[in-house]
Formats: sequence, structure tokens, C-alpha cells
Amino acid sequence: MLVSAGYLRELAEKTLLVHGVGEANAHLQAELLIEAELRELPSHGLQRLPRLVARLNAGLADPRATGVARETRPAVLTVDGERGLGPVVMMHALDRLAGLASSKGIALAAIRNANHIGMLAYYAEAAAAQNLIGIVLTTSEALVHPYGGTEAMLGTNPIAIGIPTGTDPYILDLATSRVSMGKIHHHALTGTPIPENWAVDGQGRRTTDPEAAKAGAIAPFGEAKGYGLGLGIELLVAALAGSAFAPEVGGTLDATEVANKGDILILIDPAAGEGSAAGLAPYLERLRASRPADPARPVAVPGDGMRTRRGRALTRGVEVPDHLHEEIRALAEG
Amino acid sequence: MLVSAGYLRELAEKTLLVHGVGEANAHLQAELLIEAELRELPSHGLQRLPRLVARLNAGLADPRATGVARETRPAVLTVDGERGLGPVVMMHALDRLAGLASSKGIALAAIRNANHIGMLAYYAEAAAAQNLIGIVLTTSEALVHPYGGTEAMLGTNPIAIGIPTGTDPYILDLATSRVSMGKIHHHALTGTPIPENWAVDGQGRRTTDPEAAKAGAIAPFGEAKGYGLGLGIELLVAALAGSAFAPEVGGTLDATEVANKGDILILIDPAAGEGSAAGLAPYLERLRASRPADPARPVAVPGDGMRTRRGRALTRGVEVPDHLHEEIRALAEG
Repeated sequence: MLVSAGYLRELAEKTLLVHGVGEANAHLQAELLIEAELRELPSHGLQRLPRLVARLNAGLADPRATGVARETRPAVLTVDGERGLGPVVMMHALDRLAGLASSKGIALAAIRNANHIGMLAYYAEAAAAQNLIGIVLTTSEALVHPYGGTEAMLGTNPIAIGIPTGTDPYILDLATSRVSMGKIHHHALTGTPIPENWAVDGQGRRTTDPEAAKAGAIAPFGEAKGYGLGLGIELLVAALAGSAFAPEVGGTLDATEVANKGDILILIDPAAGEGSAAGLAPYLERLRASRPADPARPVAVPGDGMRTRRGRALTRGVEVPDHLHEEIRALAEG
Repeated sequence: MLVSAGYLRELAEKTLLVHGVGEANAHLQAELLIEAELRELPSHGLQRLPRLVARLNAGLADPRATGVARETRPAVLTVDGERGLGPVVMMHALDRLAGLASSKGIALAAIRNANHIGMLAYYAEAAAAQNLIGIVLTTSEALVHPYGGTEAMLGTNPIAIGIPTGTDPYILDLATSRVSMGKIHHHALTGTPIPENWAVDGQGRRTTDPEAAKAGAIAPFGEAKGYGLGLGIELLVAALAGSAFAPEVGGTLDATEVANKGDILILIDPAAGEGSAAGLAPYLERLRASRPADPARPVAVPGDGMRTRRGRALTRGVEVPDHLHEEIRALAEG
């Protein structure tokens, strides 16, 4: 069904409040889910709410925790997320880190023991809205095979980059896997084969069968280079956050394990540099105006499509599967 | 001809000394060129030396400059490279930045007005050798088209990441272009067609003709994701270093323009985090031992191949084209 974002936000907040989450925390967690829906990223949207409620009920997610930050160096925070909700721990860390980044020029927070932080673009945008460059890294369960390999040994290890430009910020948010496991699940649900280069089955053979792929591993994006980048993120996060490596990670796709992945947030104050954020927008305009491969599809800059989809969904509403809506309505009754 | 790395290093140093470069600077610049040759990366090796000499002779490269660093914030240096040799300015910045990174936990240097810095892996290794995580970014002339575009609007914008692991460091060094322009030149020289997805010609049409591709643009690696990453690097470097955007960049492929690209160096002290560098090596061992797609080709970790090639070349020698050797020998005579 097609419903308004406002209605969904209230429904998600109510669901969280009923399950013991404090008002500010419920607002923030609901916002992350709704912002993902508005950008047509359902894998990071409301479908995560029932699992989150199960995690709250199981004591795997602490409804009140905001994380405890320790300043290990003048420009580094390490954060014990205390099993808090991912967005709550992240935004507390970001608020504190912004002060460090402004005074020191660059600052890093390494976060462990927080729940799934959702769509990374949100934090990149939050940084850019404070006129800071934001770089966000996170890890996940083992879902991706190495280049030249066939076993799931790496997380989907996304990176987001937010850069203020004087007008709309540059917002990049990408997983280092070829596709998301959510997309493979979608193919399985609709019974459509997947392209040959997406995944291997449990025996390590290339497969076009989405059910077989679910038991196997996703390819890294961009062959050896994307693998290298995803592995670099795996190592950076583990080295700094003290979090687990993908094969031992649990807690973002289940309601039985403590979330033991890690998250990294780096903020940089562009005013500490010699360039000008306002100088970026004209270059991006030239890029958009450059000759496209298909005359009907102008060159886009990361963040453009997301803003278009969000604006459209704010007007038209968000499409939510009936069964999911019913499930959340029932959860909201407690 | 096959010659020893030691011979080549002496020859390169002598060539630089004869053209007014001070001893320490000549040593460092020669080292970058030879280390690229040892890793079978000739595009960043001795073939750059004649152009470098021309740049010295034209006053576009200052043989003595080491760069002037300004601490704009406690964890940020901005560096005016004073037209110095790229490796000289970079290593001076790295040495000073290492102190900041150790005390502040993380530190960033934004460098402009330095010549081509060569193979990025060198700096990532230098950071890891000091038990620091190193992230290196640089920009270049416009050689890469946007995803969905056809005009050269972006640099090849490489990134290197060095992470100490307890044993061999993790060393990633990749351009965000599908291939290097050097590789396309190599196809042109040998008269072999290029794969269809590498490049477009001057009219923006996909081409397999390397000569046509030289007048066109290279595709980004990894489609939209690689484009986003390359563009993010373009923006980060320009915003912080105050350097030019790719369409206005000159000076790394010619002997007529001042080098106006930018370079970024970020160093992080892993001891400021909660993880353990020594914990990374066992995970990388598991990765190497995981099931390969081809039983004859074990899974590799970025840095592995480079170390193998380097070790082999130290024993066997380095293959240098006769004409290049003659050209450099003539330059070494002054």
C-alpha cells in the first residue's frame, strides 16, 4: 500500500516506544528506517523493524544506551556502543566528534558493540550539513567472496562519503559487494534468475539461481579493485574498532547474536584546508552538463538520484508491502 | 636489456645529480622510479625520468625544494610543494605528519604544487613501516569519463592504503580508472586491440582501437561505484589541497605546465584504537587458505603479488627497453 512518510514515521516510533525505547532514541531509529524507504532502499527500511523489536525483546539491543566514548588521543574517540541502537550510538558519536574535527581539523571515532547503523548516507549527510567532510565505514556478516575465491569471507563493507559543496552535498554510499544480499533475496522471492557474475553457490560455482546464491557468496564489485577496497575496510575497521572479522560477525541479520561488527567515522573540517567547498559545485555542474553516453540520460553525480527519489516519495508516499505493514501495526500494539 | 636494480638506481641518481638535484632528493626520486620497476609498474618507472629532466631544465620542477608545511590545525598540515619533486615533498610531509598522527591519533596533510608523486604504494608502505595506517590520494589530468558519460572529466585518481598487520603489511594501490592510460599506450605500440569496455574515442563511442582511445577517455573501474569513488577523491583532494580539477590539471604528463594536481596523506595510529594490528595477519592467512575459484591460483591479498614480483626482480634484474636505457645514459652525461 502507498502511505505517507509521516504516517510511517509515527508508526515506527510508536512501535519502538511500546518496546521500551526512549523518545529521542525512537525518533532517531525511526528516522533512519524512513529515510531509507524515502530513497527506495527497502533493505535498510521498515523490513528491519520487526527484527529490531525481536532484538530489543531478547536484550540484544539496549533501548536506552547511547554509547560511552573515550578520547584515547586528542583526535580519536573509541566508543563502546553498549548494545545501543546503531543510529543512536552513531549520532552521539558524530555530535561529539564534530567538535573534535572542528578544533583538530580531522578526527576519527571507532565504534564497537552497537547495533546495525542502517543507511550510511544518513551520517554522510549529517556531516555535510555541519560543513564537515564525513567518511563512514562499517562491516557485516561474511557475505562476499574474495576476488579469485569462492567462500564468503568478507562483509559487504560499505563506505559513504559526504562532502559539502556550497549547494547540494556530494553523497556517495556504496557497498563493496557486486549487489546487496537483499537484491538476491528479491530475485528469489520473484523467482527470477540473477546475472551470472553476481554470486556463487555453496560449492563455489557461479550460479544464476538466487536460492543457490543465498547459500553461497556475492562477488565483490569491480573485480580485484573492489575486493581490495572491501578488504581494506574490513581491516581498517577491525584494527581500530577491535570488532570481529566477517566470518565471526553476527547480530545484524538475526535476533540471536550480539552485534559485533564495527563502525568508523572520520570527520574533516574543509576550512582547515586550502580549497573551497563552494568551488566544488561549479565543477559538478560541468560534470552533469558533459556529453552523456545516452542523450536521454544526463550524467549524474552521486546523491542526485537519491534526492530525486526522496522528493518524489515525500509527495507521492512510500510503497510498503501489506504484510509488512500489518506486522508492524501488530507490533505497535505491543 | 636485463640489468640490476642497483645499477639502475645509480644511473637514475647520477642523472638527477647531473641536472642539479641535491643528493638526498636524487636518492629519493630515484628510489621511487626503481621501486616501480621492481614491481613491474614501468608506467611509474624509468620512462618518467627523461620527462622529469625536461621539467627540471624548464624550471617546472625545483631540484632543491622540499615543500613548506603549515599547521593549520593541530592535526592538519597544508603543504606548498614549491614545485619540488613529488617524492621529496611527500616524504618530508609524511615524516612530519607521522609525529602529528602519533600524538593526535590521526592527522592529514593536503599538498599542492608538487610534481608527480609516482607509485602510491611506496608511501603506504612507508606509513606501515612506522606502524601507522596510511591512506594516500592523488589526482591527475582528465583521462576518465563519468559513468554514463563520454568525456574525460576526471583524473585516474588513485588511492593507496597501507595497514600494518604484524607481518607483511596490507598494501592496496589502485587507480579508479578501468585501466591505466599507460596500458592503452602499450596496446597502441604493439598494435593489439583493447577490450570493448576499456575506453571511448574522441567522439564518445566505445572503441577497441587503442589509438582512438588515446584521444578519448578511459572508463571508470567498477561502473557507477568506481566512478563515485574516483569523483569522491577528485572532490576531497581539490577541497582540501586547493588544487585544480582534472580538466585544468597539467604537469604530470608533459614538460610544459606547472603540476597543479593535489595529494592527500592521512595517517592513523592503530594504537589509538581498540583493535590489534597483530590480529590482522591470522585473518589474512585464512583468506589466502580459503577455497579458490581456480585450484591452481590461490586467493591473494593485495600486496602479495607486488612483493613476489619485487623479490624476483631483485634476484633476476629489471628489464629495461634498450632505447630508454640509451636515452637515460645520454642524460646522465649531462
